[in-house]
Amino acid sequence: MRPEIVLFGDSLTEQSFSAGGWGAALADTYSRKADVLVRGYDGYNTRWALILLPHVFSSKRAPAVVTVFFGANDATILGGRLGRLHVPVEEYKDNLKTIVNHLKECYPTSLVVLITPPPVDEEGPKEYARSLADEEALEFPERRNEVTGLYATKCLELANEMGLHAIDLWSKLQETEGWQNKFLSDGVHLTPEGNAIVHQELQKVLNETPVSAAKLPLDFPHHSKIDGKCPEKAFQYLSLLSSHYLI
Amino acid sequence: MRPEIVLFGDSLTEQSFSAGGWGAALADTYSRKADVLVRGYDGYNTRWALILLPHVFSSKRAPAVVTVFFGANDATILGGRLGRLHVPVEEYKDNLKTIVNHLKECYPTSLVVLITPPPVDEEGPKEYARSLADEEALEFPERRNEVTGLYATKCLELANEMGLHAIDLWSKLQETEGWQNKFLSDGVHLTPEGNAIVHQELQKVLNETPVSAAKLPLDFPHHSKIDGKCPEKAFQYLSLLSSHYLI
Repeated sequence: MRPEIVLFGDSLTEQSFSAGGWGAALADTYSRKADVLVRGYDGYNTRWALILLPHVFSSKRAPAVVTVFFGANDATILGGRLGRLHVPVEEYKDNLKTIVNHLKECYPTSLVVLITPPPVDEEGPKEYARSLADEEALEFPERRNEVTGLYATKCLELANEMGLHAIDLWSKLQETEGWQNKFLSDGVHLTPEGNAIVHQELQKVLNETPVSAAKLPLDFPHHSKIDGKCPEKAFQYLSLLSSHYLI
Repeated sequence: MRPEIVLFGDSLTEQSFSAGGWGAALADTYSRKADVLVRGYDGYNTRWALILLPHVFSSKRAPAVVTVFFGANDATILGGRLGRLHVPVEEYKDNLKTIVNHLKECYPTSLVVLITPPPVDEEGPKEYARSLADEEALEFPERRNEVTGLYATKCLELANEMGLHAIDLWSKLQETEGWQNKFLSDGVHLTPEGNAIVHQELQKVLNETPVSAAKLPLDFPHHSKIDGKCPEKAFQYLSLLSSHYLI
C-alpha cells in the first residue's frame, strides 16, 4: 500500500497545487512513492478545523505524514473586516493541540508536522485599499505581522511541548531581504518562490525521517531495469510479494 | 467518499506534477472535490503497463476517472537506441484495449479517457546529438513524428470502437505554429504551455460529464457560509449525513 501524505490547513494549503505550489512540488518529489492529498480550506481557522477533523480524517488507514498549517486566519484582527475568522491566540494553541491529539489517537504511527503561518506584509492589502480609497480597510487592517508572529510562537511552543516537527515559516521567510514581495503575492498568500521555501523546509524535515523520499522505494521497477525481451522477469517479485501477503 | 481521478501513463504522466504540470493543474481544479492520484511510469510502454495493471488498480473502490496516456514509448523506432521500448502499433492498440477492458471489468462506473501521445519534434533530439557529435543518434533517431502519428490514430480508432472519450493530443498540439518549441521541451516532453493544453483538453472532456469540477459539490461549506458566532450550524448537515449512512 502506497503511503499517503495529507496536507491539512487553510487557503495556504488549498492553493498548494496552483502553479508553483508546494503541494504539487511535494507530489512530484514523492512521485511513485507516496500519494499527496490536499485537505486545504480557504478562510478556515482552527476552531472550524476542529469541526472538520473527524470528517477529514475518517479513514482507518494512517497517513504516513500529516501537515497541519493553520493560523493565518486565526490571527486576523478582531475589529477588522475579517474579524469573524479571529480566534484568540491561547485558543489557537489549544485547538492545534486538540487536532494533534486527535491525529495521534487515530493514527499513532503518523508523522505530524506543524507549520506556522507565514509573515504578513501589511503594505500589500493597504496598497489595494488605497487604490479603492477604502478608508475602513485602511483604518482597520485585516492582519498585522506582529500579531501573526504571536500565533507562530504559540505553534512552535506546542511543537516543542509535544515533541513534534515544526516549520517556523514566519521567521524563515523574513530572513530574506525583500520577503514582502518575493514570497508573498498579496501580503498574505505565497508566490511560487514562497511556495518553494515551504517545499524546501518540509523536505528538510522529512529527509530526517523514515518517510524521506530518498529512502522510500519506487513502486515498480525503473524502466532501465526491464529487459525488453523478457519484461516479466523484472516484475516477478510482485507475485512473490502477493503470495507472501496472502499467507 | 471523495471521488478519485487516476492518471495512468508514462513519463508524460509521471512528470505531470512538476512545475506547470497538467496533473497538478487538475488537482487544483478539483481541490476540495476529488483526489488526483499519479500513476505515471517513465519509459513504460503498454506491454509493461499490462504487467502493472492489476497492481496499480488493486483497490476495490472505483475511480471516478482514469486517464490512459501511453504510446510515446511504444512508438520508439525499433533500430534506434530506445528500440527496447518499441511495441508494434497493432499490439499497442490491443494492449490499450486490454487496459480499458480490465478497467471496465473492475470499475464499470469509471470514466476512461484515452490520450494520444503528443507529436515529436525530431529536431530537438537531433540538435542535442549534433552538440555531442553523436553520429549513431543522428543516424538512428529514437522517435519519428509520422510514426508516433500512427499510434495516435490507433488510439483514436480504439476510442471510437469502444465509445470512449479521447484527446487527440498529437493533432491538437500541431495546430499551433511553432508547436515544436512552444509545447515540447526536448522534442518529446511537454513544456508548461504543452501541459496547459493537456489540462485544457481534459477539462473540456470532463466538463461534459457528471464529474465536471463545476458540478461536483465542495466537500465542506465555503467559509463565507460559516457564521463566526455559531460555526456548528453550517456543519449540521454532516451529522445528518452520517446518521443517514448509519441507517
